[in-house]
Amino acid sequence: MAIQRKTSSPKPASTRSKNSAAAPNAAATPVKIALLGFGTVGSSVARVLASAKLPGVVLTHIFNRNVERKRSSDAAKCVPASVVWTEDFNEILNSDVQIVVELMGGLDPAESWLKKSFAAGKSVVTANKQLIAYRGASLFRLAAKNGVQLVHGAAVAGGVPVIPGILQGLSGDQITRISGIVNGTCNYILSRMESGAEYADVLADAQALGYAEANPSADVDGFDARAKLCILSRIALHAELDPDAVATQTISTIEAVDFAYARELGCTIRQVSRAQLDAKAKLVHARVAPMLVPQSSPIAWSHGTQNMVVTSGRFGGDVVFSGHGAGGEPTAVAVVSDILAVAQKSVAVDLPVRRREVTGEFLAPHYLRFVVDDKPGIVAAIAGALAEVGANIDSLLQRPGHTKQRLPFVITTEPCLTSTIEKAVAAIAKMPCMLESPLCLQILAPDDKAE
Amino acid sequence: MAIQRKTSSPKPASTRSKNSAAAPNAAATPVKIALLGFGTVGSSVARVLASAKLPGVVLTHIFNRNVERKRSSDAAKCVPASVVWTEDFNEILNSDVQIVVELMGGLDPAESWLKKSFAAGKSVVTANKQLIAYRGASLFRLAAKNGVQLVHGAAVAGGVPVIPGILQGLSGDQITRISGIVNGTCNYILSRMESGAEYADVLADAQALGYAEANPSADVDGFDARAKLCILSRIALHAELDPDAVATQTISTIEAVDFAYARELGCTIRQVSRAQLDAKAKLVHARVAPMLVPQSSPIAWSHGTQNMVVTSGRFGGDVVFSGHGAGGEPTAVAVVSDILAVAQKSVAVDLPVRRREVTGEFLAPHYLRFVVDDKPGIVAAIAGALAEVGANIDSLLQRPGHTKQRLPFVITTEPCLTSTIEKAVAAIAKMPCMLESPLCLQILAPDDKAE
Repeated sequence: MAIQRKTSSPKPASTRSKNSAAAPNAAATPVKIALLGFGTVGSSVARVLASAKLPGVVLTHIFNRNVERKRSSDAAKCVPASVVWTEDFNEILNSDVQIVVELMGGLDPAESWLKKSFAAGKSVVTANKQLIAYRGASLFRLAAKNGVQLVHGAAVAGGVPVIPGILQGLSGDQITRISGIVNGTCNYILSRMESGAEYADVLADAQALGYAEANPSADVDGFDARAKLCILSRIALHAELDPDAVATQTISTIEAVDFAYARELGCTIRQVSRAQLDAKAKLVHARVAPMLVPQSSPIAWSHGTQNMVVTSGRFGGDVVFSGHGAGGEPTAVAVVSDILAVAQKSVAVDLPVRRREVTGEFLAPHYLRFVVDDKPGIVAAIAGALAEVGANIDSLLQRPGHTKQRLPFVITTEPCLTSTIEKAVAAIAKMPCMLESPLCLQILAPDDKAE
Repeated sequence: MAIQRKTSSPKPASTRSKNSAAAPNAAATPVKIALLGFGTVGSSVARVLASAKLPGVVLTHIFNRNVERKRSSDAAKCVPASVVWTEDFNEILNSDVQIVVELMGGLDPAESWLKKSFAAGKSVVTANKQLIAYRGASLFRLAAKNGVQLVHGAAVAGGVPVIPGILQGLSGDQITRISGIVNGTCNYILSRMESGAEYADVLADAQALGYAEANPSADVDGFDARAKLCILSRIALHAELDPDAVATQTISTIEAVDFAYARELGCTIRQVSRAQLDAKAKLVHARVAPMLVPQSSPIAWSHGTQNMVVTSGRFGGDVVFSGHGAGGEPTAVAVVSDILAVAQKSVAVDLPVRRREVTGEFLAPHYLRFVVDDKPGIVAAIAGALAEVGANIDSLLQRPGHTKQRLPFVITTEPCLTSTIEKAVAAIAKMPCMLESPLCLQILAPDDKAE
């Protein structure tokens, strides 16, 4: 969605205003659109544009490497014959295209192509989360300077209108916290594991289904979600964060047994991205990590590849957005909605954003799972290490059905700081009885419920 | 949220564009705001404006009848001394106020005051659902003609940004269906009944808490929700409906026993507002009624006064919006967000809207609850009446613990048309063994789940 620029009017010609209760008038001159990238999302955008008869916009150019292969694909059948296919970006730059739709991903060459587009007076619609998270601040400034728009409603949560909803509908609130599920791959993996499957098996399925990459690190280690959290932080908390400064924790160390213990605690496990504004300290507490989520929290409702974002506002309380966060067509809905907004000169509400430092510290109860070669004195030793840092034990759970030689058991703590519990866990990890690194997960507190 | 007008530029001065990563610049000339109505929402709007330091807007006038009583109230303490309090609307009309915020409700005098505001070059932000549902089409045209904005994000679901989310984030989809919970009073009553309370007791509590009016008809009989459904239909389905043509059914005939039977069927009961576009027939199927909702549906998640809206799009699938639909401060968030949008000349995406005929017909399974003086042959007679219209019985439920002299039991049917089942129910109602009018509720089908 549109963020900045009101210094000068955006260059794309607007469509004519429609009389709301009457038939649509054909726009005088439709706004010309170029797609950069004709993969899953790009071809879906072409399909939506072709089938929806949206007034005032027309697809005129498609850029892709090896463009002939794309042009002859089944996905290209919906593309009007009038569209120019090219593998030369300069052809688009030199054309009368007014909106460049960037769907290539990555920082390079996307960043330089966006800059060239701005300089050529073209607005940009992008789904590129890394680019917006890492280079957003300078790109928005540059777009404004050139009197064009840079909009990115598809960069977070695909077809779920979280970005436009917050920008246009919650600008009057003071949002202090956002939390949610913004990586569909992790949610697919964890909600399958909730039903009893093991991590490695589900990951293999996710790869076979195309939900996960051959190298799944960006998803499972939290880097994808981190970029999205930084974008949401900018939109909702008006806080610009350094994505590299946001703490992440992999979901790959979660095991089926953790879901069994989570269930005993009235919880499930999800990859949660959360950021909380500490206005006094001029800090943002932010973290992307697998967390224990109470079954009563809306965050636990998301299954499969669904996304969910909960905003907490000073005046409006909690608002939940949920739906399909990924996939070609849902993402295309966000892209096409942004195209219409730019074509109609519909600029979003623009509030000042500040650079904020990030901390990974949260005051929260924690879930600790140990796998030990059980000997007398282990619990006493662990309890001692926790007492050492001042962390209080809330419960100790040990499910039957495991051998003493490889015994997983769980301790939950009362609320304590992340750094405190991590210090204790580091000490406990060194104990000779530990067969695996202990797993330490934040437990979302009851006040994280949307009620 | 803004709907129309792009024919000429709106009159309110825009705030200066902010450099997104820098401190806010003071706007050159703040846009002046008048509140019409200083009740719960109006005083909350004043409080949000006073505490949020929003750039570029300033409250200058407050209209209310018996204005001295309001001015000396506790709620007025947050209002700056510079604000002019008046009980003469003409004082506002003749002032340099640029945005009139109408929070009086009702059709009269709101409608004529909006028209006068437009004629005076003033944009209007309103939370008035009846006015927008009944007079929206002509008012939007008039606003556009006068080059001003008419926005109404607070008219549906208060602090939940359903209207801006759909307008700005889902304009690229083709939404074919909306369903949801848009009346917090009914949701409070029904979710309390879900926990075992009786209707009359909960209604009395709701009245004591200020959730329900002394005459609760607008809420419990569905007229409030109907207006909101018509507004959503306009935004999401691009279909203008006659609110009076939308079928409604009261929740006041629901009894505690219905929740017990619903539970056996894996459901709960909610006042559901639903509208479905039948593009071929150029019709909209619409209904506001208590319905059986599967526990797996997101619509069943809403408790207390929460609102929830689910949109179903051809490309993006189901999207869920949920949060606080009523109350002063959540509604104020929507109003203030709209004020900012108008002040910043942020106009919403505008797609053509068509007038559509309405039908109350749905093809759905139904829940029928009878209270009878039990005699042999009753089930056979009811089954006969259902067979007569071609409705197939899916299940028959009879819970223990009731006397044969006053026996409630339930029949569910396979999917059949609303008019079909109503015909059978009318025939059954005439049977001498019936101690009450049979209760007939639509059961939301599994494909109404957001998955």
